[in-house]
Amino acid sequence: MKKLIRDPQTVVADTLAGMAQAHGDLLRVETGPDHIVRRDAPVSGKVGIVSGGGSGHEPLHGGFVGLGMLDAAVPGPVFTSPTPDPVLAATKAVDGGAGVLHVVKNYTGDVLNFETAADLAGAEGIEVETVVVDDDVAVKDSLYTAGRRGVAGTVLVEKIAGAAAERGDDLAAVAAVARKVNAQVRSMGIALAAPVVPHAGTPSFDLGDDEVEIGIGIHGEPGRERIPLEPVDSLVRRLVEPVLDDLPFTSEDDVLLFVNGMGATPLAELYIVFDAAASVLRERSITISRSLVGSFVTSLDMAGCSVTVLRLDDELKALWDAPVVTPALRWGR
Amino acid sequence: MKKLIRDPQTVVADTLAGMAQAHGDLLRVETGPDHIVRRDAPVSGKVGIVSGGGSGHEPLHGGFVGLGMLDAAVPGPVFTSPTPDPVLAATKAVDGGAGVLHVVKNYTGDVLNFETAADLAGAEGIEVETVVVDDDVAVKDSLYTAGRRGVAGTVLVEKIAGAAAERGDDLAAVAAVARKVNAQVRSMGIALAAPVVPHAGTPSFDLGDDEVEIGIGIHGEPGRERIPLEPVDSLVRRLVEPVLDDLPFTSEDDVLLFVNGMGATPLAELYIVFDAAASVLRERSITISRSLVGSFVTSLDMAGCSVTVLRLDDELKALWDAPVVTPALRWGR
Repeated sequence: MKKLIRDPQTVVADTLAGMAQAHGDLLRVETGPDHIVRRDAPVSGKVGIVSGGGSGHEPLHGGFVGLGMLDAAVPGPVFTSPTPDPVLAATKAVDGGAGVLHVVKNYTGDVLNFETAADLAGAEGIEVETVVVDDDVAVKDSLYTAGRRGVAGTVLVEKIAGAAAERGDDLAAVAAVARKVNAQVRSMGIALAAPVVPHAGTPSFDLGDDEVEIGIGIHGEPGRERIPLEPVDSLVRRLVEPVLDDLPFTSEDDVLLFVNGMGATPLAELYIVFDAAASVLRERSITISRSLVGSFVTSLDMAGCSVTVLRLDDELKALWDAPVVTPALRWGR
Repeated sequence: MKKLIRDPQTVVADTLAGMAQAHGDLLRVETGPDHIVRRDAPVSGKVGIVSGGGSGHEPLHGGFVGLGMLDAAVPGPVFTSPTPDPVLAATKAVDGGAGVLHVVKNYTGDVLNFETAADLAGAEGIEVETVVVDDDVAVKDSLYTAGRRGVAGTVLVEKIAGAAAERGDDLAAVAAVARKVNAQVRSMGIALAAPVVPHAGTPSFDLGDDEVEIGIGIHGEPGRERIPLEPVDSLVRRLVEPVLDDLPFTSEDDVLLFVNGMGATPLAELYIVFDAAASVLRERSITISRSLVGSFVTSLDMAGCSVTVLRLDDELKALWDAPVVTPALRWGR
């Protein structure tokens, strides 16, 4: 295992230390229990938004803490849900009196631990709403998950809900727009090479020199099928068609197309995937009016990518375009 | 070789097609000869800034085209200088009547071909100034280079010169501030695994399972030494101390610390490197007042990173903080 780390046991703490050093203008890192909060939290009168989950998906979630997105992120151990304690601490830290939204990816541990934290926060008088993200069309009832997994669509839920909270929407409205995004977003991924979890030290699964895994999860959970490597257009079609067929997206749709890198895939390849995915959307007369290309929901050093499509309307476009100032996503202001 | 590509021969064109699809709001891709220009180019009365070089370093340079940074980027074949033709075409495309600055990384082919293009542009009545970036302290007179190589510091030169041009500085002033940044910036990198050039199909060099290369170039050119893998603090010290000793940076200095990923290294590891580098700067009482963490000057799918330190003053801070709206670097507006 070759990684730029100190010790497999301190990877999360060391990453947080680096984030605190690099982004002290945007966020604070609190310890005991660990959570990352917006520097000016709590913002009085604003709905707070908390997300989190296992580490190893950076910049998700800590890189999305800041104006117009998350008020706090709760990083668990690598690929392991945070316990209720830090989720509760983060919820209290961002409560500005208007309630708190929990954005939770659909993994059994995350759902349970955020639910416990929400109950505990409720007992302390903080109103909490929860939105569970489950955008991955690849498989149902996978390892760690009942139902569908929450993957890259989570970034879009967090950005858009964050903008709604920032403009002053109340808790019910922020939760409603987050649920609307989840209802209209679909994703699917591919792995070219397995990640190496630091405390394991070896690849999470075996993939032959000419094999790829279609429908991979962001923890290396099994996908739909393992097939020989193909040129990018064929591979991307295997991701995009199930995504489009699932909602389904139609020729009336105006969408955001998001190509996400899994950690070890260079940006140039993501642009080639974007071009290939855009061709499939064009065949179906779907309009791409917003785009996002980069490594935002990763799986340690896994090679591969995912394709996410979000159906837009005027409200979602305005919220997407609204200012966001976080380490990993930033425009306006 | 496992890559998300169509064909090794079309990698650059396919990447540009994806960039055009994803970022049509910011830039245009022109073909025959290939160059990427700011969507509103030429901006009348503004100094134009053109950079470029071999492809394979994405987002450098095309990802930095937009308001407040580059007016055009000229992508050569992978790891190969563009010919004078596209450099000339880009220079003409961005000439708003106030002259054009060429920002050139110090590689023999790039320097020669930009010089030829500058001469040709001059013959057509366009005033061109050239700034050669050579921030890599690792080695002198390396493969492809006489003198030092231009590496990640190029991003800082382009951002700061771009801001100077955007605020209306004339050509001499924009060139002067670009030279000042180059004079005050130093970098050094490390490789954990070699890149695979698409048309070669195999790793560019051999590195053992427990070896790293200190002082690597961004085309996999040899560095200073090949050593066994060490914990991150020791490795980072081997990068940061030569960087600090070279200028030298002193305890009076206020700096921008930039940790750059080489393509296949996850963001979490870059934050750990940032933390380790910040410790070395603290030992020397150097103040870190600006930061940048991410994969901005890559080497295809090479694993590793580089550390760049720029000495700041009030002028450079103001120019760094000024709005920038490009695919890869964006804040303000």
